[in-house]
Amino acid sequence: MKNFADRLLDAIDEKQNPSVVGLDPRIKDIPSHIKEESVKKFGNTIEAVGASFLEFNKRIIDSVVDIVPAVKPQMAFHEKYLTPGIQAFYGTVNYAKSKGLIVIEDAKRNDIGPDKDSTAGAYSDGHIGRIELCDGREVPGYDVDAITVNAYLGSDCVKPFIEDCKKYGKGIFVLVKTSNESSGDIQDIDIIKGRDPDSFFDISDVLGYTPTVYTEMASFVYKWGIGIELKGERGYSSVGAVVGATYPEQAEVARRIMQDAIILVPGYGHQGGKGKDTLPNFKSDGYGAIVNNSRGISFAYKKEPFKSKYGEREFDKAAREVATMMKEDITKALFDAGILAWSKS
Amino acid sequence: MKNFADRLLDAIDEKQNPSVVGLDPRIKDIPSHIKEESVKKFGNTIEAVGASFLEFNKRIIDSVVDIVPAVKPQMAFHEKYLTPGIQAFYGTVNYAKSKGLIVIEDAKRNDIGPDKDSTAGAYSDGHIGRIELCDGREVPGYDVDAITVNAYLGSDCVKPFIEDCKKYGKGIFVLVKTSNESSGDIQDIDIIKGRDPDSFFDISDVLGYTPTVYTEMASFVYKWGIGIELKGERGYSSVGAVVGATYPEQAEVARRIMQDAIILVPGYGHQGGKGKDTLPNFKSDGYGAIVNNSRGISFAYKKEPFKSKYGEREFDKAAREVATMMKEDITKALFDAGILAWSKS
Repeated sequence: MKNFADRLLDAIDEKQNPSVVGLDPRIKDIPSHIKEESVKKFGNTIEAVGASFLEFNKRIIDSVVDIVPAVKPQMAFHEKYLTPGIQAFYGTVNYAKSKGLIVIEDAKRNDIGPDKDSTAGAYSDGHIGRIELCDGREVPGYDVDAITVNAYLGSDCVKPFIEDCKKYGKGIFVLVKTSNESSGDIQDIDIIKGRDPDSFFDISDVLGYTPTVYTEMASFVYKWGIGIELKGERGYSSVGAVVGATYPEQAEVARRIMQDAIILVPGYGHQGGKGKDTLPNFKSDGYGAIVNNSRGISFAYKKEPFKSKYGEREFDKAAREVATMMKEDITKALFDAGILAWSKS
Repeated sequence: MKNFADRLLDAIDEKQNPSVVGLDPRIKDIPSHIKEESVKKFGNTIEAVGASFLEFNKRIIDSVVDIVPAVKPQMAFHEKYLTPGIQAFYGTVNYAKSKGLIVIEDAKRNDIGPDKDSTAGAYSDGHIGRIELCDGREVPGYDVDAITVNAYLGSDCVKPFIEDCKKYGKGIFVLVKTSNESSGDIQDIDIIKGRDPDSFFDISDVLGYTPTVYTEMASFVYKWGIGIELKGERGYSSVGAVVGATYPEQAEVARRIMQDAIILVPGYGHQGGKGKDTLPNFKSDGYGAIVNNSRGISFAYKKEPFKSKYGEREFDKAAREVATMMKEDITKALFDAGILAWSKS
């Protein structure tokens, strides 16, 4: 069974593209012909929303399948629609996997650990591990390739996920520095750790950065990711991190601390991040990061120039064009920085 | 529309019991006669697990409905079983509500905000707000009374939840100091805030506590909970917090910071917390906290003396006995401390 980090890096090589398409369906933004089809079948119900989401996600997947290595379906937008939403999520995961794409579930899950019997264990079982049936037999649940994890609860909450990463070749991405405006409320708090007011040295000078909550989280991610079962043949760990493209300075610090983590980089596109803003997340080998764009791609058809060029019916062509532009933007930034992996071979 | 904090306090008064029963079903711990019935109907499938959970949860609810004001179904154990698990969750929520119980969903959700269109907005819409159908009409989703929230992502991620609390009379409980062993990894980190090494004063002396990440989170909870739309007639806010019974010292500090928050207290029972450990979470009026017990109640039948006394078939009677003991333990601790609310009237 192949390690997740290796699988992701191989897929990035194959597509020569370190980017991922996020699937965050919002019913108001789904083209009307898809909604009409669903309403015809299911009436104006929650089932119709689920059916619309699945159809929309499939067409977005089809439109980018040869361009990107992975998709990132967002659980929030699906689970809000109860069982039909979950069914759409699950159908999307299976469809993407059947097309050879890696699936990174964005769910920011967690609860208390540390064992399989714990609540964190239940999340891990369901999303990346195995679920037990009435007779004790175990079957896969959502069975995504990787999931995003919120580790405010500390090490024991991450433990069951790490066990399943080892056992089933899966990965996690731990929230370190998120892309949103107020991510600093907690994550940027200056911490005492290692600082001694009576000392000659300022710890910030020694470390090269100011210790904060997110740098401490980054240190944990580094520690959690150690070990031969997690580290792949290509030198990266299956315990990755989330660092927003909107915070390139913090990304530089986090990158240095988490030497072998793959960083999932949200905040590109709609939130304002550009290709060059993602550079601090990459290592000098040209790997180590995968950049996400969600509504910037899937709902590209709603904005000019794509609105006039394609219109609602060809939303998938708009998505394809923006996904291609994003690939070019990021690879150009990597090339200009002299670290584009494929330009060396 | 009544404020959530008022509704919860009224329910606590009615039952004269500030405790809540957690519903964390694990298939291996469900009595075999329930599983057999489900397997007979659905075969050895995920559907059978979902049906077993719903039946089990209903019987636990029946057994404690006249004792406790609220139940706390844990989403992790349900969502791991895909759509049948979600269906069981939803069925449990509706059943509890139909019996007049308040439902606090434990899901520790969050993502980036700040508006309805954001990912945090999607979680809030689905669980405590409204979900939009294909024609734009809005209907309730899970429609629980309150949900637990992880605010590592900062203020903007809490904003959509607060909006829905105001709009629909709902509540949230923000993770401040969790009950698990390694909760201190992040939550107990000493922070610089307000400390000046050159000052005469030690900020800890001024504040009466050492500033840490969880005290900062508590300060945010206090701030988020301000405002007449959130604060009920009884003086408490619908923005509450989670503080584990396993950390009474930290609870004392958190209680002082979050003057009008209702604290949801996990960690009683299985995790080792006792009635007296929960006292620091209560205010001198005898309110301000609601103590949770999950597997200690629902799976009481698996341990002595209840195992011999009731056996598997009467698991619900075992649950009822432990729920009654818990009520007595907590009210005795409150009485001994001189703050039992009902002893004054």
